[in-house]
Amino acid sequence: MAAAPKAVYWLGKDTLRVSAALFAENRRRLCEGLKAKDGVVPQSVVVLQGGEQKQRYCTDTDLLFRQIADVLSNLRPATLLTLRGLNTDSGSICREASFEGISRFQVNNTLLHPVIVECRLIKTDMELEVLRYTNRISSEAHKMVMKHVKPGQKEYEMESLFQHYCYNKGGMRHTSYTCICGTGSNSSILHYGHAGAPNDKTITDGDMCLFDMGGEYYCYSSDITCSFPANGKFTADQRAIYEAVLRSSRAVMAAIKPAVKWTDMHRLADRVHLEELVKIGILNGSVEDMLKVHLGAIFMPHGLGHLLGIDVHDVGGYPEGVERIDEPGLRSLRMGRLVQERMVLTVEPGIYFINHLLDQALANPAQSCFINNQALARFRGFGGVRIEDDIAVTADGVELLTCVPRTVEEIEAFMADSAKLFSPVVSSEKF
Amino acid sequence: MAAAPKAVYWLGKDTLRVSAALFAENRRRLCEGLKAKDGVVPQSVVVLQGGEQKQRYCTDTDLLFRQIADVLSNLRPATLLTLRGLNTDSGSICREASFEGISRFQVNNTLLHPVIVECRLIKTDMELEVLRYTNRISSEAHKMVMKHVKPGQKEYEMESLFQHYCYNKGGMRHTSYTCICGTGSNSSILHYGHAGAPNDKTITDGDMCLFDMGGEYYCYSSDITCSFPANGKFTADQRAIYEAVLRSSRAVMAAIKPAVKWTDMHRLADRVHLEELVKIGILNGSVEDMLKVHLGAIFMPHGLGHLLGIDVHDVGGYPEGVERIDEPGLRSLRMGRLVQERMVLTVEPGIYFINHLLDQALANPAQSCFINNQALARFRGFGGVRIEDDIAVTADGVELLTCVPRTVEEIEAFMADSAKLFSPVVSSEKF
Repeated sequence: MAAAPKAVYWLGKDTLRVSAALFAENRRRLCEGLKAKDGVVPQSVVVLQGGEQKQRYCTDTDLLFRQIADVLSNLRPATLLTLRGLNTDSGSICREASFEGISRFQVNNTLLHPVIVECRLIKTDMELEVLRYTNRISSEAHKMVMKHVKPGQKEYEMESLFQHYCYNKGGMRHTSYTCICGTGSNSSILHYGHAGAPNDKTITDGDMCLFDMGGEYYCYSSDITCSFPANGKFTADQRAIYEAVLRSSRAVMAAIKPAVKWTDMHRLADRVHLEELVKIGILNGSVEDMLKVHLGAIFMPHGLGHLLGIDVHDVGGYPEGVERIDEPGLRSLRMGRLVQERMVLTVEPGIYFINHLLDQALANPAQSCFINNQALARFRGFGGVRIEDDIAVTADGVELLTCVPRTVEEIEAFMADSAKLFSPVVSSEKF
Repeated sequence: MAAAPKAVYWLGKDTLRVSAALFAENRRRLCEGLKAKDGVVPQSVVVLQGGEQKQRYCTDTDLLFRQIADVLSNLRPATLLTLRGLNTDSGSICREASFEGISRFQVNNTLLHPVIVECRLIKTDMELEVLRYTNRISSEAHKMVMKHVKPGQKEYEMESLFQHYCYNKGGMRHTSYTCICGTGSNSSILHYGHAGAPNDKTITDGDMCLFDMGGEYYCYSSDITCSFPANGKFTADQRAIYEAVLRSSRAVMAAIKPAVKWTDMHRLADRVHLEELVKIGILNGSVEDMLKVHLGAIFMPHGLGHLLGIDVHDVGGYPEGVERIDEPGLRSLRMGRLVQERMVLTVEPGIYFINHLLDQALANPAQSCFINNQALARFRGFGGVRIEDDIAVTADGVELLTCVPRTVEEIEAFMADSAKLFSPVVSSEKF
């Protein structure tokens, strides 16, 4: 192999070259952030716990590298800065570095965490380039699935095809999260696809598909959901719900810019959904009044979107001083802060018909008064629609990273055109 | 979906139906094994630690089900039998069941482990059926890769294709282990393919491929290696090394039957390799003398094979009283006991040209005296050949579970025939 002009991580062919400078810049930003902070003394050294090799079941003892203590002693550090802090998304505490001999050092485990979280919150140009790539390849993979889906197939065949495209064409060995390939009523199960519900239903004519899948490249994530009819043609009801969600997606995207509240974006999506459900005839009455009783959360019980980066639910959503809003829907929002330039976020509104939530609303007079149960009955078993794009916040708006057919017309035209984007075996002659 | 006549685990289409009776029979066998054992009192209850959901980095706290203690109390057990014991393959201790309130019970953590290990050692008819299936699908996937490999591709493209076939056609969402797709000199790196060496070399004309990959179905493994030239035609040297390994594979398979020592099978493979290396001209002298100085382990530093089942390196290789033989090669053998009917084992002899081992042998007069260094020089950078099949031990021999082209003639004819076995997108019209 020819010597690279500079150090890169690369998987060859048309995959992205990721410069080692990306990581150097992140180390520099971290040091800069730490230096700006009270309490960090000169000659401090950051010590992070390395990843451990985990094997299934009976193998979980890994020896730490014994040389660490000596290497660190030779640096004569004033303090070791270790990483300890709450992950506000998972509610867990991350594992602090530890090694034999650490007791000989002065250790501070509070300074590092908030600084590293802020570094991860704001993406550099080089990081944005990688996130554009993960989105481009994952978008292409979604398009390939849309070209090939047909009634009679198993949901997991589509998962397999998505993964194969991402890896074969994009060098993405792993997905960012377990693929969700819900069809028919499964599309209203928010975390379908896990080991207990492993995408094993047969896709049937008339099903809506809700495919939430994203590939990962050198640890950078993507997170994309496409919703479309398995047979390529929307019914009137499918079109109505789909376009309601698309409208909220587009309203939110048009509103996002630095300094807006992310919680307001969630509320905006809720409002658009309710307005659209009134037009469809499922709801009656004043949208303002519906908002007061949190009716939106019956149809979208999850948050509008989350930070995206090295983790698919990236860190930094609730720094100290920012509290979760304890209301239906909003309490599931994974980020509570103001939008900032260079944040990368998912925008993923959805409308779902989840029986137990619908029944709960119908049993609650404050909510049932808005519901046209006769119209609603038609949508029992419909499943759900989610439209999820990844965006980067710019100085005055957003850059859309995801690129898939989104309008009803685009989707129907794309699925009807039999030209295949990709032959998963023979490489690249058509792409 | 139609009601199943009996409870099965199944992924639809042509995938295997795994009867729930398989697991019922295993529970029955375990109880029978425990009852036959001294020290197990009536009214004992087996308590196993459930799997835990692990997420990356910051999420590792899962709450245990609080109701366990109450459920168990109601059973009024004399003793709880928990699983604690050494995994002789990984050297780790498995995680014993634990829950709030366990201190109220009488617990015995020594009785269960040896009994469960013996149950796993001997496969039932239903288990054999699943292992035949994992082998059949993985064999087909290997054949598909052989049909499609060509110089210019990346090794990981072949990994991706293998995984796609296994999942799409066989419902096998996971592989049993990280795929090893070594080509050229990478084929002598025994555990190539891990995150630090992620199958990212470009396959070049003249390379040998060593592809070690196996799919998993409802936790049952397969473990298959195919070695073949990337361009479909063996050179004279490639043929010579390949046929040397094939000869040892076939000699071992012909010798395996109940009551033979597995260590003797390893020694037999070594002997055949040395005899063949003499014929090729790389070694000179008496094979008996070579065996005395463990020359075989220079070319095959790993063990001949291992037990296979729910774990790819299944448990039970070294029960109490069976010690590892501390000799080169043999000390890496993952099973030390006598062969028994209904064991499932891999037979995976290999010859590798690993520079640091060759240099070590050349620096050791007791070994270098047998080496024709001029002939050997030709094989530096050759890589290695491994032929790995899975077998079930029968009453008087073996049942071969793996089915792939194995002779040089079979491989060349198979790779030359352009008829494709499988179109990974459009389902099943050619298969």
